[in-house]
Amino acid sequence: MVDSTPSTSTVSRTLLLLLRVLTFVFLLIALILIAVDKFTDEDTGDKTKFNDVYAYRYMLSTIVLGFAYTLLQMAFSIFTVVSGNRVLSGDGGYLFDFFGDKIISYLLLSGSAAGFGFSVDFHRLDNSINSFVGKANASASLLLIGFLFTAIASTFTSFALPKKSNT
Amino acid sequence: MVDSTPSTSTVSRTLLLLLRVLTFVFLLIALILIAVDKFTDEDTGDKTKFNDVYAYRYMLSTIVLGFAYTLLQMAFSIFTVVSGNRVLSGDGGYLFDFFGDKIISYLLLSGSAAGFGFSVDFHRLDNSINSFVGKANASASLLLIGFLFTAIASTFTSFALPKKSNT
Repeated sequence: MVDSTPSTSTVSRTLLLLLRVLTFVFLLIALILIAVDKFTDEDTGDKTKFNDVYAYRYMLSTIVLGFAYTLLQMAFSIFTVVSGNRVLSGDGGYLFDFFGDKIISYLLLSGSAAGFGFSVDFHRLDNSINSFVGKANASASLLLIGFLFTAIASTFTSFALPKKSNT
Repeated sequence: MVDSTPSTSTVSRTLLLLLRVLTFVFLLIALILIAVDKFTDEDTGDKTKFNDVYAYRYMLSTIVLGFAYTLLQMAFSIFTVVSGNRVLSGDGGYLFDFFGDKIISYLLLSGSAAGFGFSVDFHRLDNSINSFVGKANASASLLLIGFLFTAIASTFTSFALPKKSNT
C-alpha cells in the first residue's frame, strides 16, 4: 500500500523529472557558452575573457550552483521513480524541494538579469565586441529558460506542500 | 463563527500586512531615487538621465509594477483586517496571493539584478559618473530589500495554499 495514489503522484513526479532534465540540459549549454566566451582586440591584441566582466562572473556562479542543485534533484527523482520511496522521508523532503526550487530559481533569474543588464547597454556603447556580448547573451537566454523550468518546478513543489503531515 | 481561528490566522495576516507596508516604503524610496537620477558632463555639458540606460529603465518599470501590486495587496489586507472577510473569497484569493507574490518577487529581483549588472561593471570602466551610478545603486539596493520582503510574503502565501478547499 506504499503507492496508493499512482495516477496524480506519478504524473507530477514524471513531469518534475522532465523539468529537471530540461533545466540540466539548458544550464549545461549555458555553462559551456559563457566559459568559452572570449574576445581579442584586433588593434591592441588585448584579450578579454568572461571573468573580466563581473556580471558574467556572477552569471557563471549562478549557473554552476543551479547545475549542482538540478543534478542532485535529478538523482533524487530517479531514485524515487526507481524505488518508489522518497530519499528525504517525511516533511523534510517537501520542504527541501520547496525552498530549494524557490531559492535556486531566484538565483538563476538574478544571474540572467545581471548578464542582460550589462550586455544590453554595453553593446549599445561599444559595437566592436559583438561576438563576445552575443555569446554571453546566448548564455543568459539559455539561463533564463533554465530559470523558467525551475520556476515551473517550484510551482509544482509549492502545490505539493499540503502533502506535508502537519499544515 | 466567521473568525473561528483568530490566533494563527490573525498573526500571519498582520505579518503579511507588515511585509506589504515595508515593501511599499522601500519601493517608494527606490522609485524616487531612480527617477531623479541624472548626471551632467562638466566638459561637454551632456545630460544623462536614468532613461538613457536601458537597465535602469527596466528597473524603473519593475519598481512601478511592484509598487502597484503592493498597493493593491495592502488595500486587500486592510479590508480583510477591518471586515474579517477576504476580498477574493474561495480558492481565488489564495491562488491570486500565491501567483501574485511569486511573479512580482521574480520581477523585482530581475530589476535589481539588471541594475547592478550594469552598474558594477560600468563603474569600473568609467569612474567619472560616480554619483549617477551611486544613486542608481542605492535604488537597486532598496529594490533588492523590497524583493526580500516580497519573497518572504511569497513563502507565507505558499504555506497558506493548504487552506484551499481542494488540494
